[in-house]
Amino acid sequence: MLEKTTRINYLFDFYQALLTPKQRSYMSLYYLDDLSLGEIADEYEVSRQAVYDNIKRTEAMLEEYEEKLQLFHKFLERGNIIEQMEKCLRDNELDSTKLGKYLVLLKELD
Amino acid sequence: MLEKTTRINYLFDFYQALLTPKQRSYMSLYYLDDLSLGEIADEYEVSRQAVYDNIKRTEAMLEEYEEKLQLFHKFLERGNIIEQMEKCLRDNELDSTKLGKYLVLLKELD
Repeated sequence: MLEKTTRINYLFDFYQALLTPKQRSYMSLYYLDDLSLGEIADEYEVSRQAVYDNIKRTEAMLEEYEEKLQLFHKFLERGNIIEQMEKCLRDNELDSTKLGKYLVLLKELD
Repeated sequence: MLEKTTRINYLFDFYQALLTPKQRSYMSLYYLDDLSLGEIADEYEVSRQAVYDNIKRTEAMLEEYEEKLQLFHKFLERGNIIEQMEKCLRDNELDSTKLGKYLVLLKELD
């Protein structure tokens, strides 16, 4: 299991287009710019609790999107396959049958 | 531009997890099972217009998801790259620099 912040950062990357502008702002300030809940609350003139609730809800939405679309999961799987292919190329192991099998795996992920 | 039905079928494939059960049923009966609006209306005991409106709204949602997430677009791009790599393998053109460049393109799509 990835560290939670790293995971949320990835999910945010994949699904931020589905969030509202406010959700995007809070998440970006909290996770990317590393502002505290209090600092975000001050900036938006809302309570710290309101910011906290919004961020928790957004995190849950991101996990729900991931459950439905699996974009992060597929990204990791694809990354593994590509890494193995790159290793073949580096090692000059240019076996077209083996490389072809990796390509089949890549297509199956789509 | 792909024929509309083909495009909607693909978009449905990519985004159906984000639709409601009713939206999924109507779309599936109309686009996959090729039922008419009237037949779907009879089955659900609603008006033909209600089915039509629901399907049009769902189509618009699918296009909106595609605009935001570009899953179908990326699928096509990835398919092109993989096809070119498969051609290299078939032609026994096992050039690790060239194959490596295709892998970079694949990674950039994620």
